[in-house]
Amino acid sequence: MDKNIPYKIYLSEDELPKQWYNVRADMKKKPSPLLDPGTGKPVTLEQMSGIFCTELARQELDDTTPYIDIPKDIRDFYRMYRPSPLTRAYFLEKALDTSAKIYYKFEGNNTSGSHKLNSAIAQAYYAKQQGLKGVTTETGAGQWGTALSMACAYLGLDCKVFMVKCSYEQKPFRREVMRTYGANVTPSPSETTEVGKKILAEFPGTTGSLGCAISEAVEAAVTHEGYRYVLGSVLSQVLIHQTVIGLETMTACDKYGIKPDVIIGCAGGGSNLGGLISPFMGRKLRGEADYRFIAVEPASCPSLTRGKYAYDFCDTGKVCPLAKMYTLGSGFIPSANHAGGLRYHGMSSVLSELYDQGLIEARSVEQTSVFQAATQFARVEGTLPAPESSHAIRVAIDEALKCKETGEEKTILFGLTGTGYFDMLAYQKYNDGEMSDYIPTDEELKSSLDKLPKI
Amino acid sequence: MDKNIPYKIYLSEDELPKQWYNVRADMKKKPSPLLDPGTGKPVTLEQMSGIFCTELARQELDDTTPYIDIPKDIRDFYRMYRPSPLTRAYFLEKALDTSAKIYYKFEGNNTSGSHKLNSAIAQAYYAKQQGLKGVTTETGAGQWGTALSMACAYLGLDCKVFMVKCSYEQKPFRREVMRTYGANVTPSPSETTEVGKKILAEFPGTTGSLGCAISEAVEAAVTHEGYRYVLGSVLSQVLIHQTVIGLETMTACDKYGIKPDVIIGCAGGGSNLGGLISPFMGRKLRGEADYRFIAVEPASCPSLTRGKYAYDFCDTGKVCPLAKMYTLGSGFIPSANHAGGLRYHGMSSVLSELYDQGLIEARSVEQTSVFQAATQFARVEGTLPAPESSHAIRVAIDEALKCKETGEEKTILFGLTGTGYFDMLAYQKYNDGEMSDYIPTDEELKSSLDKLPKI
Repeated sequence: MDKNIPYKIYLSEDELPKQWYNVRADMKKKPSPLLDPGTGKPVTLEQMSGIFCTELARQELDDTTPYIDIPKDIRDFYRMYRPSPLTRAYFLEKALDTSAKIYYKFEGNNTSGSHKLNSAIAQAYYAKQQGLKGVTTETGAGQWGTALSMACAYLGLDCKVFMVKCSYEQKPFRREVMRTYGANVTPSPSETTEVGKKILAEFPGTTGSLGCAISEAVEAAVTHEGYRYVLGSVLSQVLIHQTVIGLETMTACDKYGIKPDVIIGCAGGGSNLGGLISPFMGRKLRGEADYRFIAVEPASCPSLTRGKYAYDFCDTGKVCPLAKMYTLGSGFIPSANHAGGLRYHGMSSVLSELYDQGLIEARSVEQTSVFQAATQFARVEGTLPAPESSHAIRVAIDEALKCKETGEEKTILFGLTGTGYFDMLAYQKYNDGEMSDYIPTDEELKSSLDKLPKI
Repeated sequence: MDKNIPYKIYLSEDELPKQWYNVRADMKKKPSPLLDPGTGKPVTLEQMSGIFCTELARQELDDTTPYIDIPKDIRDFYRMYRPSPLTRAYFLEKALDTSAKIYYKFEGNNTSGSHKLNSAIAQAYYAKQQGLKGVTTETGAGQWGTALSMACAYLGLDCKVFMVKCSYEQKPFRREVMRTYGANVTPSPSETTEVGKKILAEFPGTTGSLGCAISEAVEAAVTHEGYRYVLGSVLSQVLIHQTVIGLETMTACDKYGIKPDVIIGCAGGGSNLGGLISPFMGRKLRGEADYRFIAVEPASCPSLTRGKYAYDFCDTGKVCPLAKMYTLGSGFIPSANHAGGLRYHGMSSVLSELYDQGLIEARSVEQTSVFQAATQFARVEGTLPAPESSHAIRVAIDEALKCKETGEEKTILFGLTGTGYFDMLAYQKYNDGEMSDYIPTDEELKSSLDKLPKI
């Protein structure tokens, strides 16, 4: 082991970020604006404020302010589980017999089990500040719903979670964590909203989808006095909050003289990857340093690697604004990949634009190879990773094995977004040799891409 | 918040313990020796070495050496998840509006979800050093089995876990974590051992017990060449390894001038409580400082508060040596309390002797009040605690509320041994208002205490 680099680097409390970073401020070509689906014109702050808290709507539209103060109450909450450790994967390096140095930023050491809490507390805080009674949201895999429940419990806000019905039934323990934090959890589609009733009438017995749950959550927000809707990924505001990951990582790297050559993250809606790479991307955009960035997505839901860069709906109910992003089409229904957090048809506008400018690479991987990497990682590094996070592990291992061949001593950094304790059914399938892979055909993709809105 | 005390205190790597502490060395009156059930004489190192690794048998019998070097390989492994944070419960203090200062040492930030890993890696290490092929053990709630699986995966040792059948079926996810770490998990009683076959013939359809699983694991160890048996609690060797908890805590307290008045831990077999308090107890025994210690046990399995201090079997199969301890009788079958890790009929000999000398207090609490404390803690401090750990939370809150009444500014320290992510069925019962309490009657206790062996 390198005597100068501890196994785990923890920053002290006074080294924690006091401001989030907004990478859009440093982008010469900005991400395209959100559009009102009715008029085709950019949405206004006023329009946004009907659905989102005003301050969050402001952050969403702000592409010029580079640094945004983190309110003290949020920083206090962060201290509950932050700083998160930047860990040198000494044991993985040894197992791979690689010349590469591998680091990972671990975000799973909190009860929500992932990085989602970083934005949940911010969104709940602004809702509280605005004097709201509560917030509504949807959850699929359950990490976001859990995080939001925790944040709301802490602030005394009501929290209504629409949980995709098949998850509600297959992941009862996730549901119970949310209930323990006082959240109201409704299986979606439900009879509690008009859109839910309509869908139930049209598709009796449906087990729901994320798109449907979003529509219910938005309806619940706009029809309940004192409520707003919140979302755990995709949005630019979420990427801003998640930069606490990248800022801590950069401080730790600078402190110990670590210079990452390549930075890797899994990407569903983009919140984790965006949060991790933004500060480094800022340096790259400003010409201060250079890095390779790799977004890793499931081969079953390949928005960056096989999608189209176009305006599309963020939800299947088509109630949200249109966003320009790499998308598979809002009607695309991904196969039942076990990384529920990566099963989204589109990608954050910010990351989509950076990818389009060639500043980010993307790679898609199949789930059996992801679980092979997850298991190898668990056995040598101890932590049992979430299926989502394991996409990044897969590519980090691949990169390290390339270094082994060439003898290069590259520094590889990846985001380990969370733990897989609520994903053991997936591990069971893998352990039993019953996991398979699915890659959508070109015809399937074409059929949903053909239905993109005409802008 | 107190500016001088961070929310979480992390030691640096060079402050981590290099030696474990053996509190028996500082006890004037030592715990009574283990006895051979056949001869009634103290067991010898040779006898012990047939079941346990030789170095572990030596640690078990050594009541004079105060400090034992932690081998470098074990310290390297500890760095994966240690130091564990000593956390100031600022948010809980505020919620309780107490004048007390509350601290907790959190051991749940590793995949086994508890402190069990501290001894698992030590026991696996000595097995590897001795050139063994593997180890056998039993697990009830599953934390110990998970920890041992992780340690064995890391060292490349085979790991055979006998998991109480009802847990095997009711906690499939725990089982899958162990399998992911490469362990061989067998529901107990099984057809793989003679004792298992005998029990199955006698009680067809039984869902097993910890006592039966111990007997199977011991048999599997002695009938397989190159295997030894390992145990996750009760034994003095386990308490030694677990002192890494208390030593880190003491270093952190000394560094920041924190002087605990009362130190609280949950107690099943005693590994966590013993590990946490031993170094502080050493100071007390040497007259260097004074502390109150409180062991918290479930009212449904009250070995300290209602048991007898006597020689008894450690297992129901009666294959292990006799230990003098506070016991409810090895035939006592605790009701289905949700804190599986605390459902043991006896208490560590070391803690039993300290309790008998009046150096430790004990308290029993009912599970509904435990879950009330667990939920309150989760909502303000973020972490969802294990049912076992929540016993300590209950009493810490009670002590803090007493301070609120008296206005005293006591410093309360408790051990938060783990997380409850695999215990959501119990939380669900509590959330649904379906949890009840059970306290054994005097007659029930008498009936099992009457069957204690005559020594």
